[in-house]
Amino acid sequence: MTQTQIKNARTYILTDRLTRFRGWLSQNNLDGFLLPRTDEYQSEYLAPYAERLSWLTGFTGSNAFAIILKDKAYVSTDGRYTLQIKKEVPPEHFALGDMMVDPVSNWLAKEAHKGARIGYDAKLLTPKQFEKFESVAKKEGMTLIPVAEHPIDAIRTDKLDAPESAVTAFNADLAGRDVTEKRTLIAQKLKEAGVDGFVLTQPDTIAWLLNVRSDDIPHTPVPLSYALITNEGAVHWYIKPNRVTDTVRATLGNHVSLTPPEQMADDLMAFCDDAGKIIGLDPARTPLWFYNLVKETKAQVTDMDNPCILPRACKTAAEQKAMKQAHKRDGKAVHNFLSWIKSEAAKPDFTFSELDVVAKLRAFREETGKLKDDSFETIAGWNENGAVIHYRAEESTNLPIQLPGILLLDSGGQYEDGTTDITRTIALGTPTTEQVRNATLVLKAHIALAMARFPEGTTGAQLDAICRNVLWREGLDYAHGTGHGVGCYLSVHEEATAISPRVNDAVKAGMILSNEPGYYKNGEYGIRHENLVLVFETGEKTSIGKPLLAFETITLVPFDEDLIDETLLTAEELAWLSAYQEKSRANCAH
Amino acid sequence: MTQTQIKNARTYILTDRLTRFRGWLSQNNLDGFLLPRTDEYQSEYLAPYAERLSWLTGFTGSNAFAIILKDKAYVSTDGRYTLQIKKEVPPEHFALGDMMVDPVSNWLAKEAHKGARIGYDAKLLTPKQFEKFESVAKKEGMTLIPVAEHPIDAIRTDKLDAPESAVTAFNADLAGRDVTEKRTLIAQKLKEAGVDGFVLTQPDTIAWLLNVRSDDIPHTPVPLSYALITNEGAVHWYIKPNRVTDTVRATLGNHVSLTPPEQMADDLMAFCDDAGKIIGLDPARTPLWFYNLVKETKAQVTDMDNPCILPRACKTAAEQKAMKQAHKRDGKAVHNFLSWIKSEAAKPDFTFSELDVVAKLRAFREETGKLKDDSFETIAGWNENGAVIHYRAEESTNLPIQLPGILLLDSGGQYEDGTTDITRTIALGTPTTEQVRNATLVLKAHIALAMARFPEGTTGAQLDAICRNVLWREGLDYAHGTGHGVGCYLSVHEEATAISPRVNDAVKAGMILSNEPGYYKNGEYGIRHENLVLVFETGEKTSIGKPLLAFETITLVPFDEDLIDETLLTAEELAWLSAYQEKSRANCAH
Repeated sequence: MTQTQIKNARTYILTDRLTRFRGWLSQNNLDGFLLPRTDEYQSEYLAPYAERLSWLTGFTGSNAFAIILKDKAYVSTDGRYTLQIKKEVPPEHFALGDMMVDPVSNWLAKEAHKGARIGYDAKLLTPKQFEKFESVAKKEGMTLIPVAEHPIDAIRTDKLDAPESAVTAFNADLAGRDVTEKRTLIAQKLKEAGVDGFVLTQPDTIAWLLNVRSDDIPHTPVPLSYALITNEGAVHWYIKPNRVTDTVRATLGNHVSLTPPEQMADDLMAFCDDAGKIIGLDPARTPLWFYNLVKETKAQVTDMDNPCILPRACKTAAEQKAMKQAHKRDGKAVHNFLSWIKSEAAKPDFTFSELDVVAKLRAFREETGKLKDDSFETIAGWNENGAVIHYRAEESTNLPIQLPGILLLDSGGQYEDGTTDITRTIALGTPTTEQVRNATLVLKAHIALAMARFPEGTTGAQLDAICRNVLWREGLDYAHGTGHGVGCYLSVHEEATAISPRVNDAVKAGMILSNEPGYYKNGEYGIRHENLVLVFETGEKTSIGKPLLAFETITLVPFDEDLIDETLLTAEELAWLSAYQEKSRANCAH
Repeated sequence: MTQTQIKNARTYILTDRLTRFRGWLSQNNLDGFLLPRTDEYQSEYLAPYAERLSWLTGFTGSNAFAIILKDKAYVSTDGRYTLQIKKEVPPEHFALGDMMVDPVSNWLAKEAHKGARIGYDAKLLTPKQFEKFESVAKKEGMTLIPVAEHPIDAIRTDKLDAPESAVTAFNADLAGRDVTEKRTLIAQKLKEAGVDGFVLTQPDTIAWLLNVRSDDIPHTPVPLSYALITNEGAVHWYIKPNRVTDTVRATLGNHVSLTPPEQMADDLMAFCDDAGKIIGLDPARTPLWFYNLVKETKAQVTDMDNPCILPRACKTAAEQKAMKQAHKRDGKAVHNFLSWIKSEAAKPDFTFSELDVVAKLRAFREETGKLKDDSFETIAGWNENGAVIHYRAEESTNLPIQLPGILLLDSGGQYEDGTTDITRTIALGTPTTEQVRNATLVLKAHIALAMARFPEGTTGAQLDAICRNVLWREGLDYAHGTGHGVGCYLSVHEEATAISPRVNDAVKAGMILSNEPGYYKNGEYGIRHENLVLVFETGEKTSIGKPLLAFETITLVPFDEDLIDETLLTAEELAWLSAYQEKSRANCAH
């Protein structure tokens, strides 16, 4: 088929789906529907069955929210996907928005009529999200109506089942804490918060708590499931019991019971239906559906953060050791790949594309014999594609690597003992003076953060400024955070804190975060230098008596020296760099 | 009298006062009283009539809160005054607390009995403060009872009147905006906030709004008064009309009416007594008394920040010019004093004390012929006294300047065209290598902030980290903020934002802030390098399109080169320093 034929076929399919969707609205006496791009676990990566927004609108980006009315429809994303959404979504059917600039609820307020009945799925919205729509609905005289079954599940003829991969145990020796220790720790936190139980709706926190993993979704090795943990440390895990072998069950111990998901509502209600019971729920992360369920019982809700988030973020000594081991292995693979492509690119017959880079890098990682998965879709951006911050190479954008230029390569691996995330920017052919200068400035920012020492209580926003300050002085900046948390054979984007201008939570000992400043020149090239760092207690105190923390860089891959102008570095920066390069090369050598 | 006799006489007086206070409690059927150290304007510097806490407890520090029960009493302050409070307050009468560690309301909860009737003056507590006591009272079964007259005013035989100094006009040419422009600006903000009027209870915001000054309290040239501004820009100023001459009145224009303070309650009630009226009040800064007053009317209260704070903080071009002029004059006086003491100290017959430093520096400032007042009490700390962050030399602590050592000198002047605040740390005699090293590290931190460039939206906490980062790397830190706002011939501690770990408000163009990192070695010496900086728009944008701001240092006094080890400075820092030293010396030379 030609490109035009493909496009026409695609539009035909999407038009048909939208027609059927609107038919469903009519049958159900609704005037519209709220359609977030997420699953009932608020996952970042979705299993195919949950790709509902993409099925209806054609948009495949990782952040979106659609509203379908009877005569118009809307899809909103953020600045990262402005170009992509225009290509993917048929403009005759959908108006487009940027949710960072214009809240999605504004479109509803403006476009839906007074008295409109707007449907939603209470499993896909958090109370925080719902509140905004509710206040718009109140103001504009609309009604929000929960539906029993998601309309797309109802109308899809090719409806997919939710995944039910086998559950495996995560070795307690790697975790440094067995299930009993973790249950006890969380139960203690619940007692302190004065709640009787907490409903865990984030699969990665359940995976952490129960030392289990699975293959339900790409990139994040968690079993999609919910659980209840009581303040006595009992866990009711809502998962098909046949997914868990007896061997895995044995690691869970006696206080973890397995209940099929279809019995969850009854089980939760039985637990809650006691006057005076207090149930903890996380309003920013838990589907509204759970709030509604508890409301029907005698129990009260207390809003609180998911109590697993902070202890999970502060890695145990065993997890730190495991993560370092994974980084040594991964660093060697990435280093070998970079050396290989540097030497290949120098040959006259070099023909290679961005997609070839992705595949070849994967092959080097697979050669370790330990790779479980990429930790996210590899970003391989050649020249102008490197300036697109969340670029993913596809057939339609795939650039040939034609020298000279700069390759931005952001990738990571999932191993049984840890998760990695690394970005290297390499020159193939001779880079320009400007490119070398800017890459060196970004490196100075990276080193400023890597060398930082800071008292307990220092926040992500403060560390972000220490890093960016170096670039700000030169008028440079980047439109993304400086660092995110990383899990241990878990999510590559792990919550708790982040190194970002908007995050006022403290960075704590044991956390593993990325250090990834960048610079992007639109239409020309992108630079990012990313390592993971482990926060540790130096054992020293500041002169005013606060414990002093510092970062240990655990990623071990040398930076491309073709992109470093050493005359721009201070003596301290040079010393850090040469020690780092040497250590990374030594890691590869044995 | 001997020291013991003085102490005994003092204790006798304080015992008598406390007995009379408790007599008043009995007569008024109260079991206790809440006694904050502030006046009805929440002022930092108090007129003598408002020194009620000090009159009763003996404590003269700038931050305190006392609670008097029938059989026990309590005074709480913060870490700065731990030593001082022990010296000043008779231990047989008062338990002592640190309010940063243990909230004052905890003591009430623990020590007052169930059913206790606790009095308070609603003009001296903000709703934010009151809330805490109210929740304790509710929990512990106590009642909080407002009193009509402050008990100390009732029992003092030597009761002082509130000051009624003459009001002078602040030249609109220096302010860059006349009263009409300011009224209109604030009225517009009130309209946007949907309120009909706002009650100004902070004298320094009224002084700013009406371009007036006065001598009611030390160091801050404001007339103690309240005002109401309507959303049409009319101002009801509650001040004795005879304090304002016709000349000053003419500068106010027709829309500012003068009403005697005793008519304020009626006037405010008349304004508020209209169903549907909405009155803006600032819950963190306005006495509870005003909330109670509005409650008695048909009007509703909307909580909001005092709308004068932000426009006042962002100085006009005229104010910037005036402030720079004041700093040139003040810089010359301070520089001359420092040169004088450096050369005097080298003479063998040098005998001089901390108090002599204070007096002599004042004399140099007075020689300018323009000095109105010190902008706060000068801190002159020799060696170990320099390590006491808020040290004020008194007869009992006054150290002789015996060489060698380090003098920490923090002082400022009030001039008709501006307010200054500068700290210099100077060596008299030969400093130790350690002192030079630490002074240089503090200077590096100072320069890091002075040279910072940053995008719009950068917060005080972020800039604080950019400064402290330099010291953190060496394990050093200081237990105070890095910078505070400074007014233009107004308060030397001006609100809006601050460069501090706890402040997440943005730093904006036109603001004038201090840059004052330090290092304090207990029992040995203190170092602080303080200049004032003006935030300005560079006219450039960052690579992601945000306006880039920077600091211009407006204080002009060279740093003591005896305390600088140039080998510790980078080339960039050296360049900044030599340009600064040269500019400062040039300012003094003409």
